[in-house]
Order: sequence, then structure tokens, then C-alpha cells
Amino acid sequence: MKKLINSAETVVTDALRGLAAAHPDLRVDPGGRIVSRACGPTPGKVGLVSGGGSGHEPLHAGFVGYGMLDAACPGEIFTSPVPDQMVTATAAANGGAGVLHVVKNYTGDVLNFELAADLCAEEGVEIARVLVDDDVAVRDSPDTAGRRGTGATVFVEKIAGAAAEGGAPLAEVARVAREVNARSRSFGIALEACTTPVSGRPTFELGETEIELGVGIHGEPGRSRAAMRDARELAAVALDAVNEDMPLSGDVLVMVNGLGGTPLIELHIVFAEIAERLSGRGARVARSLVGDYVTSLDMRGFSVTACLLSEDLARLWDAPVQTPALRWGR
Amino acid sequence: MKKLINSAETVVTDALRGLAAAHPDLRVDPGGRIVSRACGPTPGKVGLVSGGGSGHEPLHAGFVGYGMLDAACPGEIFTSPVPDQMVTATAAANGGAGVLHVVKNYTGDVLNFELAADLCAEEGVEIARVLVDDDVAVRDSPDTAGRRGTGATVFVEKIAGAAAEGGAPLAEVARVAREVNARSRSFGIALEACTTPVSGRPTFELGETEIELGVGIHGEPGRSRAAMRDARELAAVALDAVNEDMPLSGDVLVMVNGLGGTPLIELHIVFAEIAERLSGRGARVARSLVGDYVTSLDMRGFSVTACLLSEDLARLWDAPVQTPALRWGR
Repeated sequence: MKKLINSAETVVTDALRGLAAAHPDLRVDPGGRIVSRACGPTPGKVGLVSGGGSGHEPLHAGFVGYGMLDAACPGEIFTSPVPDQMVTATAAANGGAGVLHVVKNYTGDVLNFELAADLCAEEGVEIARVLVDDDVAVRDSPDTAGRRGTGATVFVEKIAGAAAEGGAPLAEVARVAREVNARSRSFGIALEACTTPVSGRPTFELGETEIELGVGIHGEPGRSRAAMRDARELAAVALDAVNEDMPLSGDVLVMVNGLGGTPLIELHIVFAEIAERLSGRGARVARSLVGDYVTSLDMRGFSVTACLLSEDLARLWDAPVQTPALRWGR
Repeated sequence: MKKLINSAETVVTDALRGLAAAHPDLRVDPGGRIVSRACGPTPGKVGLVSGGGSGHEPLHAGFVGYGMLDAACPGEIFTSPVPDQMVTATAAANGGAGVLHVVKNYTGDVLNFELAADLCAEEGVEIARVLVDDDVAVRDSPDTAGRRGTGATVFVEKIAGAAAEGGAPLAEVARVAREVNARSRSFGIALEACTTPVSGRPTFELGETEIELGVGIHGEPGRSRAAMRDARELAAVALDAVNEDMPLSGDVLVMVNGLGGTPLIELHIVFAEIAERLSGRGARVARSLVGDYVTSLDMRGFSVTACLLSEDLARLWDAPVQTPALRWGR
């Protein structure tokens, strides 16, 4: 294993030091593992907090900033942050109008955010929660009851963040967040597994012409193993899995997301095929993201996330955002 | 070799189809291999054109847009575009105030841009050229006379683009572009070579604990082979190589650039070490980029590019930019 790290134990702390050095508009506590806006919470605005295991960069810390999250709390690699971090992040996000917790549906995250919400409520902070569970590949697993939360997290954080920035109250921000999740589905395909710094070995082994369909973002196995095929066929497999669960029509927000070790040129090739197949179904790529947004360390492969847009959701998507990983319109 | 492609022959065309589908604000001719602003040239503004082999995405097509390039012409993977493409791109960029060609210093690119400039001049278009040659690792090689052009291309295109957008005449845009190049140096390190779609094999073989120092962006060998070490030591090797060629002090614009297959979490770890080492020398990271900007297909590794900022250059760097790969301030 060759990785650009100092030691397996200091990966998260060292990466947060780098995030801090690159982004003076963020307040970063590398030891305490809290990232928030340097300007502090916005008085009267609903706060947004997310967190989860590290290894999915830029998620979540890369989405802290105007128009998106107020604070994030990264855990160890592929490991939920602890409730104390979530409480500290919530305090850093609390502008007095309540705080929304954006929680990917993994058992550890769910339980810890529940505990944190109770602690925050005891301190008089109003908390709402949205559970993101967009991955159609697998239902129930050792780490999850129900579906896993993956790519749609970016859409939920962006769109709910815009609603909060626009002055919506907590109940409305939570409603919008849940609507985005309900309208979103994802499916991922791995060409190679990822290697965690601690184990130093791929989380699963794929043969020279094998791929993993319906892969998760923690190196856990997917729906099935299959033979490698070309980009057009792989795009069809992913999009059809999404479409089978939620028929796609009208204006669609589409993300073709790299899993960490996939070059941009390949993601654009996949995106071309996705866009063509969508239009063949009478749907339309109305908005899009192509790049690395929810990764799995150095995994090679991609995921597709589709969200059925309404006019309101499109308007919130287009609203200004200013974070390390997403920025436009301001 | 597992790659998200349809065939080795259609990689560039298919990726440009994807770029077009994702970016309606670009005019993309996938067959002719020209990418320009959908709004056409800005009357009275100096045009900026760049181009070079594909495989370095987002360079150059991802930098077409307000505040940066007017047009780009991607060649085949690691292969110079032909003069005809450059002439077409120049026409798409020509607002009547002359056009600057941003050329990375590789023999093929240099010769073809020279031919194209002659053809454009015959058509009455005033052409200036900046040659980017920032890579301190190697002097002269089978593909280059002098130093290679790598990461500084992003700085040149951004800063000269801002000057052009601000209304500077061609001579001044060219002067600023050359100043940025003169103030910039780069050094790259590969943990694994890249694999081209046509050959299907790594361009060089590295052992399990070997790395390549001073690597180029075309899979060509670097300065020397060395033993793998930790991120702090690798950051020091790269930064010291830059510093030896151009002593670093004052305000520095620093890019820690991923070579295509390196996850963001590792780039942040390298950036932390670069920033710390710089400040130990009395220099300061005044502006920064951390991410994939000048890649080498799926190569694993990073490069560091440093540019000694002046107040004028910092102001141009901060000016609004709206391209697929760089956007802020607007």
C-alpha cells in the first residue's frame, strides 16, 4: 500500500490540518474534529450539521460554508463520529432557530445522532433530523437497517442549506430535506475496491475483468459481482437500477460521482452515456454534477444519483453556495 | 486494465460529449475537438486559447469560461492537437483585440502552435504566445527542449484570463502571462504510473515500495526512482526542489495537485505539510488550490506548484471566474 499519509493513526487529523490551511474561511479543530464556518452561526438562521466517517471527502467538511452546512464532524475512517462531536458541531451551527441534522442511514451514525439530539434538546436547542437513504443497491446489511445513504447527501445538504439561508424555519428546512431524499436514488459500481490505511489491503478482491455492482461507500460488498463491460453498458446498469426503483421523467438533477480513484475524463464518458439514456426515456438532465463528491478513499468506480426536480427544488439548487467543494452564484 | 471507456479510440470524443451534456454554457464540438464559450467571443476583449494532449483533465477544456479561457482544443491522449484545431479555436476566441496562445512547453505543441499562429496572422488575427515551462524536475527530454510545462498552466490561464476580462490589451495580457510563468515552479511525485487506454499497461513499473520523483504528466519518467516515505518527507522533497530553483518567500500561491488517481484526503495531508514547511521558511500560503487540476490519466501521486505573488497578481487571481473546474466570485 502506497498512500500519501504520515501514519494510519493520524490520517484524519492531518487531512483536517490541510483543510484548515487551504480554507481560512473555515474554522477547523483538527484534534476535536469539528469544521464550521469561521464567521460563526448566523443569528436567526436554521443551522445545518452533518457528519459521518471520514474517507468520503469532500463529504462532509468540504460542504461547510454559505448556502450549505454550518458545521461538520468527521469521524475516523469509515467510523461514525461520537455524540460529543455532534453536540459541539450543533453548538457551532446554532443561530437560535434550531438545527437540522443530516444523517446518512448507517446504524452507528443514526444511534449517535439520536444521542446527540437528546443532549442538544436538554440544552434547549431545537433539533430536527433527515435520514438519507438513497442507495437502491442493498436493503438491510450488517451496518444498516433499510437502504444506505450515499450520493443524495450532497443534494440534501445543498438544497436544505439554500432553504435555511433563505430564512425558512426549521420545520420547512426539514421538510425540504426529506423531500429531496424521497426524490433521489443512487447506484454505484466499483472497478477496484478501496484500501483503508489501517488494514493496508483492499476491502475486497476483484479479478482483472471483474467489477462489483451496487457497491457501498465503505468498501462493503455490493449487490453482485459481474464481468467488466464498456462505459455505455455500465451507465445503463446503474441508471436502470435507479429507474427501476423510481421511474425517471421530467427534469432530473444528475450526479456522476467518482469514488476517489477515478479520473475525470472517465466520469465525463459515463456522464455522456447517462445523459443520452435519460433523454431516450423522455427525461432531461436539467442540472448536473460530474466529479468526486462522495468518495470511498481510493476506490475506482462511480455512482449515479438522480433527483426528480420540481421548480422549487431547482431554484434552491441554483441558489448561491460557497464551500470548498461546491461554489457558484456568489 | 479496467477503465470507464467505450473504446480506446473514442475516449476523447466520448468525454467531450459528456462535457457538453454537463455544461450548456460551453459550445463543444466533440468530433472537431473544440471547446469554447457558448456566448461566443467578447467583442473588444483579448481572447485566450490553450490546448494540448488530452488525459490532463480538467486542463484545458475545464478552464473555458468567464475570466479564463475563451477556447480550448484537446488533442488525442498525450498528443498535441493539430494546427487546424488551433486555428478554429482561435477564431472562436477572437473578439477583435488579438488572441493569446497559452502553450505548454512540449515540442509537438510548440511547433503546431507556431504553425497555427502563422495561419492566424495570415487571416489578420494578432497572436501572442506564452510558453509555460515551470517543471523544475527535468531539463531537455525526448519530448521537450528546456523545462516541461505543467501545473503553472492553471495559474497562467487564470491570471491572464482575468487581465483580459479586465480589458487589458494583448501586449499586457501576454506580459502578465509570462510574468506568472516566470514566478512559478512545479515538481511532481508518482506513487503509481498511469495507464493509457491504447497500450493498456502502466507507462512505467514501480515496485511496492518505489516511487518516481520529478515525474512528468505524460507517463514519461522523472528525475529518479526512490523509496516510498511518508507524506511529510514527500512534501519536503517536492517543495525543496521548487525552492532550490526559485527561493520561496513572501506571499505564495500554492497548488497541491492530484495526478488523477489520488483521493482528496491524501492531497489535504500533503497540503498540510507544504503549508507548514513554507511557513518555516518565512513564506506564507496566501492563496491555494487543492485538488485535481492537471492530471495524468489515472496516475497516483501529486505535484506542487508555487507562484510568488505580487499584489497585482493576487488581485487578478481573486477576480471572478466561472468555468467547469474553477469558479468563484461571481
